[in-house]
Amino acid sequence: MALAYLGSKKPNTTAAMSSPPELILTQDELKKIAAYKAVEYVESNMILGLGTGSTAKHAIDRIGELLRQGKLSNIIGIPTSTITHEQALSLNIPLSDLDTHPVLDLAIDGADEVDPNMNLVKGRGGSLLREKMIEGCCKKFVVIVDESKLVDYVGASGLALPVEVVPFCWKFTASKLQTLFKDAGCVAKLRVISGSVDHPYVTDNGNYIIDLYFKKDIGDLKAAGDAMLRFAGVVEHGMFIDMATTLIVAGELGITVRHK
Amino acid sequence: MALAYLGSKKPNTTAAMSSPPELILTQDELKKIAAYKAVEYVESNMILGLGTGSTAKHAIDRIGELLRQGKLSNIIGIPTSTITHEQALSLNIPLSDLDTHPVLDLAIDGADEVDPNMNLVKGRGGSLLREKMIEGCCKKFVVIVDESKLVDYVGASGLALPVEVVPFCWKFTASKLQTLFKDAGCVAKLRVISGSVDHPYVTDNGNYIIDLYFKKDIGDLKAAGDAMLRFAGVVEHGMFIDMATTLIVAGELGITVRHK
Repeated sequence: MALAYLGSKKPNTTAAMSSPPELILTQDELKKIAAYKAVEYVESNMILGLGTGSTAKHAIDRIGELLRQGKLSNIIGIPTSTITHEQALSLNIPLSDLDTHPVLDLAIDGADEVDPNMNLVKGRGGSLLREKMIEGCCKKFVVIVDESKLVDYVGASGLALPVEVVPFCWKFTASKLQTLFKDAGCVAKLRVISGSVDHPYVTDNGNYIIDLYFKKDIGDLKAAGDAMLRFAGVVEHGMFIDMATTLIVAGELGITVRHK
Repeated sequence: MALAYLGSKKPNTTAAMSSPPELILTQDELKKIAAYKAVEYVESNMILGLGTGSTAKHAIDRIGELLRQGKLSNIIGIPTSTITHEQALSLNIPLSDLDTHPVLDLAIDGADEVDPNMNLVKGRGGSLLREKMIEGCCKKFVVIVDESKLVDYVGASGLALPVEVVPFCWKFTASKLQTLFKDAGCVAKLRVISGSVDHPYVTDNGNYIIDLYFKKDIGDLKAAGDAMLRFAGVVEHGMFIDMATTLIVAGELGITVRHK
């Protein structure tokens, strides 16, 4: 990745189209650029929420690198998944948990969708519940995405809004969810383990994920969230409403940063 | 138990006080009277929600008895816990689940508290989540209690309002719950296995229970419920708001039945 790209802007799209191949950035390079930018918000002595997923992974690698170089010190990380826990351990980032540190200075994480009000969809990686617990008690929550994640409304990407549910009678709960959003053309599907036909994906909390696909905007997100939570079988949904405080978007034309 | 007592009324309390010992009913006898009365609502060919706990147990025994006697037939039971599942199996009550039968004709269950609006507290037996899933989709929900369960407001008995939470960082979630209700003097305690000091009680869904104790009325129950559900670590709470359609109360002065 060309770190010199950070903060630069290509003059225009046409020029970019005729640029040499090395200037055309992959989606992963864009994620890395956003992640490195986010880590600029990290200071020594912070309690840090560590996100989960391919974008957050770059940020955690970078934090580990800065600790190793002595440019950061006395960081305590609170990982949002067992996989992030393992990554942070391998980088010698000191770890703790919410029980010990119920208030965090900063969290950095990716998102699957970001709407114009900086509301997020998260959980395609399966860690939405722990992410929401941890990122819900941060003074600052920096969200890092490549520009493909920006949407006009939640669900507009055509990809899933994940909902964590108890395994008990999950078909019943999936049916209730689909009916709740029938006006938005909702289809509810049990997430299965990649490559399998019918082996349910199981979260870190021992639950299943129902992925909701919409044909239209579901409207008031808070009302939709509360309605889902009132179903007894629903543990948590993947909408992160009014939680992000900073949004970093890496695109072909450079980085944009928005604060709320 | 004196079945002749069903539907009868003692003339007055003073008379009851001077009655022979056999007319003084124990709490368990009162529960049984309420349970038998509830089973009068059961008809052949019904899909039935089968509750959990000492009062519901009497109702299920009675249903098994009527099936055996041929007075009921073609009943399908949907049990609200593994313990009720086992009891119903032992009585040869045919069983199914919500996935197969998402609409039930009738459910019968006890409650830990009943307020003047027939809102309930349930879950001291630990099965609140499955009970709420099942009893939330019944055409009729008959609640059976002895008169000691009637309260002026939720929490007034001084006993717990149970909340099912994910084990992950449960102390953090307990602290959030206690803070949410600090104006009501809330104390949040992890439920432990009876007789142990610190072994958490684990629900049928693999979760923990936080028991909330209040010194005062918490006010708007729907708002309180929604606020709890918005905590990511909360799976479900034990308030059953606007769910009961019939309340059967057995007391020293007879049975009272209320419909909503």
